[in-house]
Amino acid sequence: MAEKMDKLKSLLAEVSDLNAVGAVLGWDQQTYMPKGGAEARGNHLATVGKITHQKFTSDEIGILLTDLEKEHMGAEPDSDDARLLKLTRLEYDRATRVPSEFVAEFAIVTSKAFEAWVEARSKSDFSIFQPHLEKVVELNQRYISFFPPADHPYDVLLDQFERGLKTAEVQEIFDALRPQQVELLKAIAGKPQINDTFLHIDYDQQKLWDFSEVIATKFGFDWERGRQDKSAHPFTTNFSINDVRITTRFESENPIVLLFSTMHETGHGLYELGINQAYERTPLAGGTSLAVHESQSRLWENLVGRSMPFWEHFYPELQKLFPVQVGNLDLGSFYKGINKVQSSLIRVNADEATYNLHIMLRLELEIGMIEGTIKVKDLPEIWNIKMDEYLGVVPPDDAEGVLQDIHWSGGTLGYFSTYALGNLISAQLWEKINADIPDLSEKFRKGEFGALLDWLREKVHIHGSKYEPQELVQRVTGSKIDSGPYIRYLNQKYSEIYGL
Amino acid sequence: MAEKMDKLKSLLAEVSDLNAVGAVLGWDQQTYMPKGGAEARGNHLATVGKITHQKFTSDEIGILLTDLEKEHMGAEPDSDDARLLKLTRLEYDRATRVPSEFVAEFAIVTSKAFEAWVEARSKSDFSIFQPHLEKVVELNQRYISFFPPADHPYDVLLDQFERGLKTAEVQEIFDALRPQQVELLKAIAGKPQINDTFLHIDYDQQKLWDFSEVIATKFGFDWERGRQDKSAHPFTTNFSINDVRITTRFESENPIVLLFSTMHETGHGLYELGINQAYERTPLAGGTSLAVHESQSRLWENLVGRSMPFWEHFYPELQKLFPVQVGNLDLGSFYKGINKVQSSLIRVNADEATYNLHIMLRLELEIGMIEGTIKVKDLPEIWNIKMDEYLGVVPPDDAEGVLQDIHWSGGTLGYFSTYALGNLISAQLWEKINADIPDLSEKFRKGEFGALLDWLREKVHIHGSKYEPQELVQRVTGSKIDSGPYIRYLNQKYSEIYGL
Repeated sequence: MAEKMDKLKSLLAEVSDLNAVGAVLGWDQQTYMPKGGAEARGNHLATVGKITHQKFTSDEIGILLTDLEKEHMGAEPDSDDARLLKLTRLEYDRATRVPSEFVAEFAIVTSKAFEAWVEARSKSDFSIFQPHLEKVVELNQRYISFFPPADHPYDVLLDQFERGLKTAEVQEIFDALRPQQVELLKAIAGKPQINDTFLHIDYDQQKLWDFSEVIATKFGFDWERGRQDKSAHPFTTNFSINDVRITTRFESENPIVLLFSTMHETGHGLYELGINQAYERTPLAGGTSLAVHESQSRLWENLVGRSMPFWEHFYPELQKLFPVQVGNLDLGSFYKGINKVQSSLIRVNADEATYNLHIMLRLELEIGMIEGTIKVKDLPEIWNIKMDEYLGVVPPDDAEGVLQDIHWSGGTLGYFSTYALGNLISAQLWEKINADIPDLSEKFRKGEFGALLDWLREKVHIHGSKYEPQELVQRVTGSKIDSGPYIRYLNQKYSEIYGL
Repeated sequence: MAEKMDKLKSLLAEVSDLNAVGAVLGWDQQTYMPKGGAEARGNHLATVGKITHQKFTSDEIGILLTDLEKEHMGAEPDSDDARLLKLTRLEYDRATRVPSEFVAEFAIVTSKAFEAWVEARSKSDFSIFQPHLEKVVELNQRYISFFPPADHPYDVLLDQFERGLKTAEVQEIFDALRPQQVELLKAIAGKPQINDTFLHIDYDQQKLWDFSEVIATKFGFDWERGRQDKSAHPFTTNFSINDVRITTRFESENPIVLLFSTMHETGHGLYELGINQAYERTPLAGGTSLAVHESQSRLWENLVGRSMPFWEHFYPELQKLFPVQVGNLDLGSFYKGINKVQSSLIRVNADEATYNLHIMLRLELEIGMIEGTIKVKDLPEIWNIKMDEYLGVVPPDDAEGVLQDIHWSGGTLGYFSTYALGNLISAQLWEKINADIPDLSEKFRKGEFGALLDWLREKVHIHGSKYEPQELVQRVTGSKIDSGPYIRYLNQKYSEIYGL
């Protein structure tokens, strides 16, 4: 049995290497690759992707899995090996259920859909994208048909990103949260606007960059095992537990965002850096789900990085670096400025109090499209009605409305809710952390983040993908994903800031 | 037949993709990879290397090759398809002749040999490296045994880097060249030393970097299809004809070397950028041999970059950038300084007049080791005797002698002569270019390098690996590799500089 397990692991190690190789190709593509390399890079990625799929779906792995499952029956279900078999089985079935012709068709359809989306957005004309999105929806419905019937067809899509989570669970969570977020937003709208003009003036890019790395270092990012580079869209990727790459970007109209972007990606990066080294080159390496990953990035970006204790430590340094910009601005005004709430049209620019509402809107539309209760052609109208209902703003055109996100053009449905779930989990963890480390704020004021990182490593990071997301949240916080802590956090934070 | 050819090409395209992927991994390893990524990167490279080898040596490719060769008999032997078959056959046979157990053993032996070499060099103790080098020699002898008997066993090693070239040819070329280089060196030694202290003072790294890219741009390097980065050892690699990466480095004790290093790598890069786009993803892409590649880098670095007309154009700009360093230095003194000849111990620091002598020494030792006429244990002694004989200097220790180069520790024998051959080819091309473009110097004085690049593209670059190196040199210059032009070039240049 040990021999078979070793054989399986050595085959999975090769697959892991190939996945890492694909990640290197992607990282280079988004950071340093010259324009001329694009076509060749498409070929490299396609060839590596094809070989990875062939290797992973081989009969050899299938037979080993079946044999080992039989032999493992009754064994400790929480052992690493048992969990490795369980996760591999899930991914193996997923990979083998989907015919390769479908994968090829999907690639062609989404490649065209992406081009159409780019054009549609630039012309703000949904009708250009509509037929492509209709095909994407149909392909997603066919994808679902390859799997056994679920409670809800959308479950199959969600499961790609959040193992084991059900559509009904997400709906229940969001239904409890939505009215409370809408209510909070209305209360804030009745208060005077915060002045944040200092955010939208000129800051030296290199100084911000260097400062972002000072913060990442204090958070515990290990530069011997990672680095930061520039890309058009910030992201985190990794090629090993010991080679984690984050990226950031400079936005001239909102320069300080670079700091929060780096904190966000540092959160993702610390998760990957903290995974059990014994899981290297196995499916157990890597964060367990997108929502749990997002809980880590949001925790460092928002619950730490937009908190008063954090800035009590770092603000004097920022003032020294930027005397013209914030030298005469008091900490309280700075803090309010970076926490200003404002209903806006664009998800990626949304603040903590409005972000989830953007997500809920998208989830409803996706479920409707998959169920067939919402027609693609009606999306722009429904989008605008719901924006008004949830956020009190209506897009002037589709570019700032239904066409703003890249996800659907890539064929991806089932992804959006993980962003909001990540916010919720981050607040659940936060309550637990503050209970376990009562002087957390005091530590932040002294620039000490080690106790927080140690806690996260022990409770979350070390486990990699061993536990399913709901299971992990339950283990760590004592309950499943729940909106209570997040709404408490929002209410408390914004009551203070806005004097509600 | 067309169908089989298409099938073969599609299989070779995959192999080409995998080779490119390996190159991306190597590039990242030497430019940006954090230290912690090293172990994982070794696994990535090993996995990709293994799969590349499996794909290339597949029976499917073997059968297609045999079928197509039969069908192509009597077809135009200079057609691209005929040459593609010929080159693929050569590489296929080479790859299939060597058992995979040997490849694995070679990897283990050289991995240990490299570690031993690092230690031996740091302690300047050859005895640490000796047993490893003995194994390397033995492995190279076994490698040779997998191939049909050649005129000389060393031919098999040389053929890895210079298709079709024979040991006897190289020996004949070097035998004609050596006495003339030694004689020139003695003549120079009798003249007063050139003052080059301005080279060894402080220069701003960023300014040199930017200036190096100004030069590369003037040479015709296409930044939409390439880029320059930093690495410990400068190199050129490419992942496509349209994605060519060069690197350079800053040496604080000799900062201006950065410019020549960039010119050198730009020469390699221009070769790859100029290859027929129709060869993309086929074995015909890529420079045809190391010597021809080196002829391109040396031509731009030395025949262009260390020439008076080049600096007549660029020197005023350099003086403007570095007024403290060279503002008061006249062009003639600068030109002499960058062309100073001095016998030195270290190959990589050698000037144009001494470089080849370092190579000849190494070739003799390699041939002796392979023949068994030189014992590894005697290398340090023979090294020092020959250094004295050829260059008139004797290393004070093995670190600055026989242990200075990395090549043998990686198992590589047969490589060194390509450096000197590249110098010779560069001068052969140079004579032809100057005959074809009589006002070349005048163009350089005006900062115009387009005519030169066009010539090289048409005569050399466009052909990729279609022709064997000797064949290409013959086609372009009318004779095979020959030391005459290089010694004429050296004699003329240094007679002027040293007043011989």
